[in-house]
Amino acid sequence: MSPAVALDVSGTETEQNNRRFFLTPIPTMLLRYLASTGKLLRHKPIPSLARQLSSTHREIPALTKERYPVQRGQFAEVTNGDIAKFESILGGSRVLTQSEDIQGFNIDYLGSVRGYSRVVLKPKSTGEVAEIMKYCNERRLAVCPQGGNTGLVGGSVPVFDEVVLSLQLMDKIEQIDEYSGILVCQAGCVLGTLEEKANEKGLVMPLDLGAKGSCHIGGNVSTNAGGLRLVRYGNLHGSVLGVEAVTAEGRIMDLMSNFKKDNTGYHLKHLFIGSEGTLGIITRLSIFCPTASKSVNVAFLGLESFDAVRSTFLAAKRGLGEILSSCEMIDALSLEASTTHFNLQSPIEKYPFYMLIETSGSNMNHDEEKLTNFLESSMEQGIVLDGTVTNEPTKMRNIWKLRELIADSLINDGYCFKYDISLPLDNFYDIVLAVRDRVGPLATKVTGYGHVGDSNLHLNVSCEKFTPEIYKLLEPFVYEYTSKLRGSVSAEHGIGFLKTKYLKYSKQPESLALMQQMKQMMDPNGILNPYKVLPQA
Amino acid sequence: MSPAVALDVSGTETEQNNRRFFLTPIPTMLLRYLASTGKLLRHKPIPSLARQLSSTHREIPALTKERYPVQRGQFAEVTNGDIAKFESILGGSRVLTQSEDIQGFNIDYLGSVRGYSRVVLKPKSTGEVAEIMKYCNERRLAVCPQGGNTGLVGGSVPVFDEVVLSLQLMDKIEQIDEYSGILVCQAGCVLGTLEEKANEKGLVMPLDLGAKGSCHIGGNVSTNAGGLRLVRYGNLHGSVLGVEAVTAEGRIMDLMSNFKKDNTGYHLKHLFIGSEGTLGIITRLSIFCPTASKSVNVAFLGLESFDAVRSTFLAAKRGLGEILSSCEMIDALSLEASTTHFNLQSPIEKYPFYMLIETSGSNMNHDEEKLTNFLESSMEQGIVLDGTVTNEPTKMRNIWKLRELIADSLINDGYCFKYDISLPLDNFYDIVLAVRDRVGPLATKVTGYGHVGDSNLHLNVSCEKFTPEIYKLLEPFVYEYTSKLRGSVSAEHGIGFLKTKYLKYSKQPESLALMQQMKQMMDPNGILNPYKVLPQA
Repeated sequence: MSPAVALDVSGTETEQNNRRFFLTPIPTMLLRYLASTGKLLRHKPIPSLARQLSSTHREIPALTKERYPVQRGQFAEVTNGDIAKFESILGGSRVLTQSEDIQGFNIDYLGSVRGYSRVVLKPKSTGEVAEIMKYCNERRLAVCPQGGNTGLVGGSVPVFDEVVLSLQLMDKIEQIDEYSGILVCQAGCVLGTLEEKANEKGLVMPLDLGAKGSCHIGGNVSTNAGGLRLVRYGNLHGSVLGVEAVTAEGRIMDLMSNFKKDNTGYHLKHLFIGSEGTLGIITRLSIFCPTASKSVNVAFLGLESFDAVRSTFLAAKRGLGEILSSCEMIDALSLEASTTHFNLQSPIEKYPFYMLIETSGSNMNHDEEKLTNFLESSMEQGIVLDGTVTNEPTKMRNIWKLRELIADSLINDGYCFKYDISLPLDNFYDIVLAVRDRVGPLATKVTGYGHVGDSNLHLNVSCEKFTPEIYKLLEPFVYEYTSKLRGSVSAEHGIGFLKTKYLKYSKQPESLALMQQMKQMMDPNGILNPYKVLPQA
Repeated sequence: MSPAVALDVSGTETEQNNRRFFLTPIPTMLLRYLASTGKLLRHKPIPSLARQLSSTHREIPALTKERYPVQRGQFAEVTNGDIAKFESILGGSRVLTQSEDIQGFNIDYLGSVRGYSRVVLKPKSTGEVAEIMKYCNERRLAVCPQGGNTGLVGGSVPVFDEVVLSLQLMDKIEQIDEYSGILVCQAGCVLGTLEEKANEKGLVMPLDLGAKGSCHIGGNVSTNAGGLRLVRYGNLHGSVLGVEAVTAEGRIMDLMSNFKKDNTGYHLKHLFIGSEGTLGIITRLSIFCPTASKSVNVAFLGLESFDAVRSTFLAAKRGLGEILSSCEMIDALSLEASTTHFNLQSPIEKYPFYMLIETSGSNMNHDEEKLTNFLESSMEQGIVLDGTVTNEPTKMRNIWKLRELIADSLINDGYCFKYDISLPLDNFYDIVLAVRDRVGPLATKVTGYGHVGDSNLHLNVSCEKFTPEIYKLLEPFVYEYTSKLRGSVSAEHGIGFLKTKYLKYSKQPESLALMQQMKQMMDPNGILNPYKVLPQA
C-alpha cells in the first residue's frame, strides 16, 4: 500500500489515512531573495548582554569569589600606573574604567558568575593586543579575553579582577572570496554580520548558533562552537583555515592561511581552537564558507520509540544523503514543555518521540522528491507514524521554535539541571530513563532532546527548586554514566570556569598532564584567562 | 538558443553542433552492487614497496647520508643487548634484523632516500609501542615510525640507523557503526581495506588516495593526507574524531573519542595530525565516515582560458552544490603528456584547458539533471566549449586516467621538477606562465594541473636531464613566488626529510620557534623521527 502524502499548495494541512503532510512550494525567486537577504535565517539572535543589562536592570548575581570555592592567583593588582600605560597604548576612549561602563563585561550571559575587574581594554589591532599582553605579562597582570560574552560555562568573564580584553572593536571583514569561499576577518566580527555578508556572495557560514546576533567569530573559534549546521558542514577544526593569535607573552603567532591544503610543519592553529582563550587570544582568522543552499525544507515527525528514531536517522542519512542539514530528536515531555509554556501548537498528534529533520540543497524539486520518498518509505515500514513537511519560512520557523524553546521552557518549572553530553546512539536515550528512575518524584520532568545526528543529548531535569537531595542523586551519577560509555561531559559548551571539576570524567590523567604542560609552555606566568579549562591544583 | 546536449543510452557519443555529451544511465541496482563491492573505486593501488622491491629488484638508491648534507644526531647505536631487549618485548619473529628482510623499510617509495637501520620492530599493540619507546628513550636510540611507506618527502624511512617501528601488524578494525558512521581501528590498517569494509556498511572513507592499496590510515593521519575527496568531505582535522598516540617517552595519550562533539579541554589530537610522526606515534584512531553515494558522474570539459576554468568552478559550486565531489584542472601540455606517453584517447578535441568534474549523490536522476543544467548553462554562456559526461564505470575510470597519469608521464621526458603548492585562484595559473618564461628552452614542458577546487596546483617542469642551470632558475624562485602570495609550499605531501629547508617560505619565524618548543616539550631527547619536518639547527 502506498502511503498517503497530500500536497497542498495553499499551505494548509490535509488529512488522509491519519498521515498528514503538506508540501508548500514557494517560488524559487522568492526563496533566493529570502536567502540573499538573510531572511531565511531561523535562529533568533540574543541581544548583547551589555545592552540587555542596561535596558532591563537584570538582577546582579553574587560575586564568583563569594559563590564558588576559588583562590585568587598570585597576580598583580591593576594600578593607576597600569591604566596610564593602557591609555598610552590605546588612547583614553578605549580604556574603560567607570563601573557603569564595565559592569556588563563582568557578568556572564546566564548571570551565574561575576568578576570585579576595574578595567576593560578595547584594542583595534593585533599589534595593540600584543603590546597589551607583553606589558601584562611583565607586570603579572591576569587577563580575561572576551568576545560577545554569550558563553554558558563562565569562560568569558573575569573570576576576580582580571583585566578584560574585549575584541568588540576588532570587527573588520577583510575579504570574502566567492570563488574559493574563503572569508578573512578580525576576531571581533559578529557571527550574524558575517552570515549576512557571506550570503551576499552566495555563501553561508559553516556554523549557526542561537547567539549569532551577538557572539563573535573569535569566541566561536576559541570555544570550538558546534551549533546547528555541524551535521552538514563539520566542526571548526575542519572549517577554520588559519588564525592569528597573540600569546600570553605577547608573541604574535601568524598562522593565517587562505588555503584548504597546507602541510608545512605542525598544525599549530588547532592549539587555539577550543582552548577557550587560555593559550592565546585569536585576533584574526580565515574560514571556509560553503555555497548557500537555494532550497530548505523542514519535516516534523512522530515516532513510537527511540529505536524508531535511530532507524529514521539512518534512513535519512541514506535517503536524503547530501541534503540532510539537521537531525534533531525531541521526547514527549520536552515537546510538552515548549508547547505548554510558550503556548505553541504542535503540527501533529502526541507521540512518545518526535524528530525535526531539515534539508538544504541546490534544487527545490529534487529536495522535495527526496524528502517525499524518504518519508513514504519510512511510513511504509512503520518507523515514522505521522509527519508534516514545509518549506514555507514562517512554518519552518514555527517548527524550529518547538525545538529551540525547550531549554527555556524547562526552567519555568522552577529549577533545571542541564547536561550537554555526547553518547553512543546505541545507548543514547537510556540515561534519560535511568535518571527518571533514580530521581523519581523529586523531579518535575526528566527529559531528553538534542542533536541525534551528532550523538549529542541535552538531558534536562526540572524540579520546583534546587535541593541538595536531588543534586546528589544527579551528580556525579550523570558524569560517571557518561564516562563509562566514553561519552563527552561537555559536547558543545566547553569547560570554562564552571565545569573544570568535571573534566576528569572525559579526559585521562595523561591527557590532563599534557594539557598542563601545554599551558605552562604557552603561558609560563599563567596570566591568560586563569581559573578556566584546567582544574586548579 | 538552447545548447545541444545529446542523451545516448547506448553509451556511445553523439555529435550535435560541435558539442558532445553522453549520459549513460546504468541500472541503480548495478551501481549499488559495484559500490558495495568496491568496484567503483577508481584509483589504482600502489603495491607495497617491500613486495615491489623484492619482486622487481629495483635499483638501490645511494645512502641518504651520502647524498644529502645531514649530520647524524648524538644517538646511541643499536647493540645486541638492545636487540635482545626488543625480542623480550615482541618475541623473536617480530624483530627483523636480516638485511634482506629490512631493505624495503630503509628505502622510500620514490627511491630518493635510503637509511641503514639494522632493526625493524613490529608491535601489535599500543602497550608494546609504549614499552619500546620507553626503552629507546632511556637508551637514546632514535626511532623512525613507518606506516605503508608511500610518502613522497622521505619522511617514513630512517635517515641514518634509526630503529624502524613498523605499524604493519597493527591492522585491527575494532568497530564500524552504520548509524553514527564512526570507524575505530588500529593505525596500521590499509586505507583500501577500510574503504572496502566501510562500503559494506553503506559508508565511505572521507579520504581517497592513489596509494590506498598500501598506505596506512595512521600514516594518512600523521601526514594529514589530502587526496581526491577533500573538496567534498574536508580534511582530516575535521574527520578524525580521536587518536591514541604514544609519545617519545612512551606515554600513552588516550585521546580517543567516538563523537563529533567533545569540548572537554585542549584539543590535543591535532598535535598528532600532520606532525609526521615527530611528536608521537599514532596507534589507534576513530574517524567519521560519510554515507556512500549511490550515483557518480564524471564530466570532462574543454575551455579556452584559465579565467573560464575559474568561472566554471564557481558555476559548478553553485549549480551542482552538494553533489560536487571533485573539481580538477588540466592544461593542454599536461593532457598531451598523459595521452602521448600512455597512448590514451581524450574524449574531446584539443583546448587550452580542460576540467574534470565529478559528482556523487544519492539520486541518479537528480544528479544527471543538475549536471545537464549546469553544463547547458555553462555552454550557453560560452565558458565551456566542449564536453563529455558519463556514469559508466569504465569510461569514468578512463577519464580519471587522463588526469592521474600526468605525473608519471612527465617523468618520461627525462627529469621532472615537481612542485605541490597552494595558490589563490586569482593568480593560480600565472606561476606556470612565469616559470615557462623564465626557463625558456631549457625545459621540455612547463605544465600546471591539479585540484583547482582546493586551490592546489601541481607545477611540473620536465627536461632532458637535471642541470644546475635550470635548478637555479627554479629554486628558490618557485618558493619565493608562492611565499609572496602567502601560498603553501607543500599543500599535500608534507615536509618530511626532503623539504625541511623550504619550510621557512610558508612559516614565520615565530611559528617555527613555537614548533621547536613543541618538539622539545613532547620529545626532550629528540629521538622520534629525527631530521624530519623541523629544519636542523
